[in-house]
Amino acid sequence: MSFTETADENAPHIGVLPSGPRGTIADVEGVTVGHCTLDEDAVQTGVTVIRPHCGDPFASKVPAAASVINGFGKSIGLVQVEELGMLETPIALTNTFGVAAVAQAQIRAAIQGNPKIGREWSTVNPLAFECNDGYLNDIQALAVSERHYSDAYETASVDVASGSVGAGRGMSCFDLKGGIGNASRVVDVAGQTYTVGALVLANFGRLPMLTIDGTPLGRVLAERAAKAVAAGAVTLATSESAETSVNSATSATSATSSKPEQGSIIMIVATDAPLDARQLKRLSLRAAAGLARTGSVYGHGSGDIALAFSTAYTVPHESDFVALPPMLADTRLDALFRACADSVEQAIVDALWSATSVTGRDGHSRLSLHDAAPDLAQLLKQSS
Amino acid sequence: MSFTETADENAPHIGVLPSGPRGTIADVEGVTVGHCTLDEDAVQTGVTVIRPHCGDPFASKVPAAASVINGFGKSIGLVQVEELGMLETPIALTNTFGVAAVAQAQIRAAIQGNPKIGREWSTVNPLAFECNDGYLNDIQALAVSERHYSDAYETASVDVASGSVGAGRGMSCFDLKGGIGNASRVVDVAGQTYTVGALVLANFGRLPMLTIDGTPLGRVLAERAAKAVAAGAVTLATSESAETSVNSATSATSATSSKPEQGSIIMIVATDAPLDARQLKRLSLRAAAGLARTGSVYGHGSGDIALAFSTAYTVPHESDFVALPPMLADTRLDALFRACADSVEQAIVDALWSATSVTGRDGHSRLSLHDAAPDLAQLLKQSS
Amino acid sequence: MSFTETADENAPHIGVLPSGPRGTIADVEGVTVGHCTLDEDAVQTGVTVIRPHCGDPFASKVPAAASVINGFGKSIGLVQVEELGMLETPIALTNTFGVAAVAQAQIRAAIQGNPKIGREWSTVNPLAFECNDGYLNDIQALAVSERHYSDAYETASVDVASGSVGAGRGMSCFDLKGGIGNASRVVDVAGQTYTVGALVLANFGRLPMLTIDGTPLGRVLAERAAKAVAAGAVTLATSESAETSVNSATSATSATSSKPEQGSIIMIVATDAPLDARQLKRLSLRAAAGLARTGSVYGHGSGDIALAFSTAYTVPHESDFVALPPMLADTRLDALFRACADSVEQAIVDALWSATSVTGRDGHSRLSLHDAAPDLAQLLKQSS
Amino acid sequence: MSFTETADENAPHIGVLPSGPRGTIADVEGVTVGHCTLDEDAVQTGVTVIRPHCGDPFASKVPAAASVINGFGKSIGLVQVEELGMLETPIALTNTFGVAAVAQAQIRAAIQGNPKIGREWSTVNPLAFECNDGYLNDIQALAVSERHYSDAYETASVDVASGSVGAGRGMSCFDLKGGIGNASRVVDVAGQTYTVGALVLANFGRLPMLTIDGTPLGRVLAERAAKAVAAGAVTLATSESAETSVNSATSATSATSSKPEQGSIIMIVATDAPLDARQLKRLSLRAAAGLARTGSVYGHGSGDIALAFSTAYTVPHESDFVALPPMLADTRLDALFRACADSVEQAIVDALWSATSVTGRDGHSRLSLHDAAPDLAQLLKQSS
Repeated sequence: MSFTETADENAPHIGVLPSGPRGTIADVEGVTVGHCTLDEDAVQTGVTVIRPHCGDPFASKVPAAASVINGFGKSIGLVQVEELGMLETPIALTNTFGVAAVAQAQIRAAIQGNPKIGREWSTVNPLAFECNDGYLNDIQALAVSERHYSDAYETASVDVASGSVGAGRGMSCFDLKGGIGNASRVVDVAGQTYTVGALVLANFGRLPMLTIDGTPLGRVLAERAAKAVAAGAVTLATSESAETSVNSATSATSATSSKPEQGSIIMIVATDAPLDARQLKRLSLRAAAGLARTGSVYGHGSGDIALAFSTAYTVPHESDFVALPPMLADTRLDALFRACADSVEQAIVDALWSATSVTGRDGHSRLSLHDAAPDLAQLLKQSS
Repeated sequence: MSFTETADENAPHIGVLPSGPRGTIADVEGVTVGHCTLDEDAVQTGVTVIRPHCGDPFASKVPAAASVINGFGKSIGLVQVEELGMLETPIALTNTFGVAAVAQAQIRAAIQGNPKIGREWSTVNPLAFECNDGYLNDIQALAVSERHYSDAYETASVDVASGSVGAGRGMSCFDLKGGIGNASRVVDVAGQTYTVGALVLANFGRLPMLTIDGTPLGRVLAERAAKAVAAGAVTLATSESAETSVNSATSATSATSSKPEQGSIIMIVATDAPLDARQLKRLSLRAAAGLARTGSVYGHGSGDIALAFSTAYTVPHESDFVALPPMLADTRLDALFRACADSVEQAIVDALWSATSVTGRDGHSRLSLHDAAPDLAQLLKQSS
Repeated sequence: MSFTETADENAPHIGVLPSGPRGTIADVEGVTVGHCTLDEDAVQTGVTVIRPHCGDPFASKVPAAASVINGFGKSIGLVQVEELGMLETPIALTNTFGVAAVAQAQIRAAIQGNPKIGREWSTVNPLAFECNDGYLNDIQALAVSERHYSDAYETASVDVASGSVGAGRGMSCFDLKGGIGNASRVVDVAGQTYTVGALVLANFGRLPMLTIDGTPLGRVLAERAAKAVAAGAVTLATSESAETSVNSATSATSATSSKPEQGSIIMIVATDAPLDARQLKRLSLRAAAGLARTGSVYGHGSGDIALAFSTAYTVPHESDFVALPPMLADTRLDALFRACADSVEQAIVDALWSATSVTGRDGHSRLSLHDAAPDLAQLLKQSS
Repeated sequence: MSFTETADENAPHIGVLPSGPRGTIADVEGVTVGHCTLDEDAVQTGVTVIRPHCGDPFASKVPAAASVINGFGKSIGLVQVEELGMLETPIALTNTFGVAAVAQAQIRAAIQGNPKIGREWSTVNPLAFECNDGYLNDIQALAVSERHYSDAYETASVDVASGSVGAGRGMSCFDLKGGIGNASRVVDVAGQTYTVGALVLANFGRLPMLTIDGTPLGRVLAERAAKAVAAGAVTLATSESAETSVNSATSATSATSSKPEQGSIIMIVATDAPLDARQLKRLSLRAAAGLARTGSVYGHGSGDIALAFSTAYTVPHESDFVALPPMLADTRLDALFRACADSVEQAIVDALWSATSVTGRDGHSRLSLHDAAPDLAQLLKQSS
């Protein structure tokens, strides 16, 4: 199968807040990301690692908190993040059945850097999130191994790729090709300038729900696909998608009663604003607003989890007291809340925009948004 | 000040699911609503009562659960709803400083119906929610009294008014007149037809954020207001709103750093689907998706709370066992989730659509959406 | 009915940590407490007010967090404490149906001190907890009014009374007279000395469960009461209690299936250690350990709520940033956890020890522990 | 080192409720347990598997809920249990760094039984809990592999061993040998007889805290050890423990400021009572009461997690509706709450009572309670 290469049109800019220079989570100073991509026949998967700072997060722990928007998910590490309000390993993303290997690798790496772990010291809390890429990837192959975590970790840099890479390799989003998306926003708060960055692993949604910057693009594409199917052609790559599209486009009340989502989205939000864990939890929940604006209603089978961390300070592994910078008042959070929602929405659009079409397990394939809608720019212009 | 009467144009229909016959929460069989409206000079406030069924909810308790999306709020009763998964009084809405009087009235009414309460029996859990209507209403007057709850309760019927009535009398939404909104959706699930109804008390948002069915109407209105202010006219009723509009329309990064929200939204969701408290909690959270699509990012100062209840069965006050109908499987919830999100979004639009302009405390006034945008239908057509 | 006056024997000291000089919550510098007691025939109730510092908590907010151990309770204010991690009024305790009046009084007092509330400023979050004193008190009389809150507030001092006073006037505990209890513990942590103080409103438990410092005193008293009943005497004051005792003492498997608890306990924990809201939530949960050691299993009908606050810093109502002292590391919390559990257990013992017998509604009465067990000192000595 | 073999004295019976016939979690009909014990030099660890019924829990899911009492823990699976209120694999217990291998094994087993998982069907949620056995076990060896899960699973039966077996092999409790403990209680509720069973993995606490059935046995043993140390002898096995004992016994305010806990306790509670997930969550929290009565204050470094499940019904993987038996009313839960607390306390005592002394990594050893207190029966008799 050959996929059309589309021109690199810019995605629409969500909202009124400006982006940071890179338009990625790495616009938050110190944050780096690495991918390890597995792309061999039926194995279309990978690992993505987000390092909150360039040091050892076990020695210098990072304030963090998460919101579980819909807990159909198999992450590891959230119980302790909720209790202690910090993370102590890099954040890892992978497929659902890769969590164990990745967590094991995180443990091994932490021990290597801190040989007292589990002996003189307490143990380490691995932190790995997942989405189910089983449509494109042979997830039963359990292809992700500890080495893939290390490989991703070692390539971490400020040059962050989006699309069908790393953990995003086999992911689907709105029946199109999903994957890794990035975005950032810059806000002025209380005389200071802060950055919010988001990295998403986007693997959720049915085509008719897709909304880009308020434009119900999914409905248009679903209707088009339905017509094509009626005419005997199969344009939207797979019969499964086309069938969904047909169902959705032609039947109102049953629009959502067709095959349920088995997707998920992980939303990692970074900021350099000085926030404590309680405030970071508040911030992370605003990812739900950005997610909703793309068409999601947090489907039953979707593990929708947002985690936010701050780079404004760290917490040493051993100390009696923790010195903190002046912390931003809760009454000043609104701009950051908006930046979070906009960054997450933009990152989801970026995942769709950046992904390339992929064919994997059993000949299943997902068209990229560009391949599914070669006239994308025009479609968006018409609607806005 | 005279406000333009606009023709009764229909509000846009959100999403693809059909509405119930009334388009209100009363489309869920058995649910009735009553309002008591206080409209005297600086007192612009009221009480709204939602009865989940026509009987006594203390004797026949109602399965229920809530999601606190942003807990800047002074409700009473949620602690026990969270623990026991049911409500045992009608649901009351009022202004922030009316909660105490309304709760007292709920207690008195429950005792009257059940003289054993607090003696042979346990006590009763009042359930009252609030938003701050202090911009239009002299909230410091503490004008809501127990009688207003009774008055609202006694008028409860299936004919549910929306707009500047009951608890919605003094509420603002997107710097326009807000208040009570209603909507419903009908879905086919597992061979059955279920209804989801929503009633909102909408009192949140800044004008530039307003989005109606994906159309960024607020930006247009804010820019228009800014131009008018620049030209020396004051069209959007109040200098506060106009100033906000000017700020918002002209400055990107400071768009959200102007005066923070002091609003809130209460979202009451009813359904006849057989769900337990855990599932109702899941359902209630989908209100956050509908809310986000109107432009909210769950502002710091906004008490954003959703409560969902089911009318499919009741729980007797005294019994050893509770007989339940066959309960809908979690895997079948997606259509209800969508119906919840769409109903809440539609109900917010309905609040704006139904509200009439109000002038209250210190000459403060809020224009209705129709008065603020006499060319509303055209504006929406252009944008979609 | 005449009650025996017992000598002022000291209650056993719980645990190994030393008490502060007063043995009350006021051992935490700055904390004061006031009671207003209503004692007229069938009205046996009251209000207790805890001031976290001598200033205005709306202007200088206090870091706080709560654990709802069993949410059969009708408090007001916890939703916002959970979201914002601070309180902004004094803490009020009263009977279940007094919450509304007390909350109204808190609102009125806050407005008086801060006339911008609900106008230029956001609204204020009242914070009132309750237990059901309906056995001794005619709770349906709704006797608590706003004035009683003011009266309690105005008498607040470091001299804190325990027993059948304030909100504790009509409370029962283990079928004996309960009420207000106090205790404190002093700990050395990280080179500093910190105090943890507890004030409880104890209104829970059935006699056979009562355990004092590990001694199952309740079983002994219940057996004694059962024998007395069998012999035709009524020693433990009320037929209800005696019946419970008989049931409990004579039937193993049905020990807990008799009349369920309709009680509750509110546990307020103060500390001068520098903790943030997340840490205070952790601290507050340790109240559950102290409570369990007295015999409670957090009964279904008991509203068991703990709230912890720190006096180490305050948060101004208006500010861009919040300056914090060096915060105690989570790894150093164990001593404070123990101090919390021990203080709460000791405060419950203090409530029983300090209470005087009370007769109220319909001739109902509760014997004090001393009146129920004139040989208390001997009983405890025998068992330990 | 040779350890004294003590006579098989019975442990004291906690509370007044009768035990089931086996005194293990397998008294709940259908529940079976298997252990795989690794006992080779420095490797002293293992896996324990609890099967909620004899079928495939993926096909017939089990209603369940958990309470995280202190979230210093690295379990996997709780996010989805919280959302969906059911478990779909057997429950596995192991050491902290064995979670990944065990989860991988659970996934593999589920796929083997249900080849559609991750393809036509959604993925499976592994559920594994852990404690840190790093004092006795060389946890850095990552000795637990997938095979050990299968081995444990295959030996599952109603004959449930307690003590230094399975996941309990390397665990410590109150500076003594901990491990697996079991207990059950039978209660009459609403005319029916129900069983509550508990299995704990006990690995928490410092010696001076140990309380058995209200008797502060730990203080006695710690004082004895301190004297022995002062006299030059080392009786309580390790200098670490002895040092702790000395510190604890001689210094009041610093009693808890010595080396913090790095332990944990996992408490699995089964019942045949018909409860839904919300009620099971309530039930699981009562484990905290039983735990507290043994001396725990839920230490900072202790992962204290309780999970409760019901065997009264199952939820099919695929179905539109779930038929439920008449569910027990919340007002009838008190007896089950007590049974849970008592079972958990008894199970902790059973872990101490059943454990045999173990020597592992670097010559570290933990004496069993019987070896540490050969005069145990007498000590308990004296104190009660």
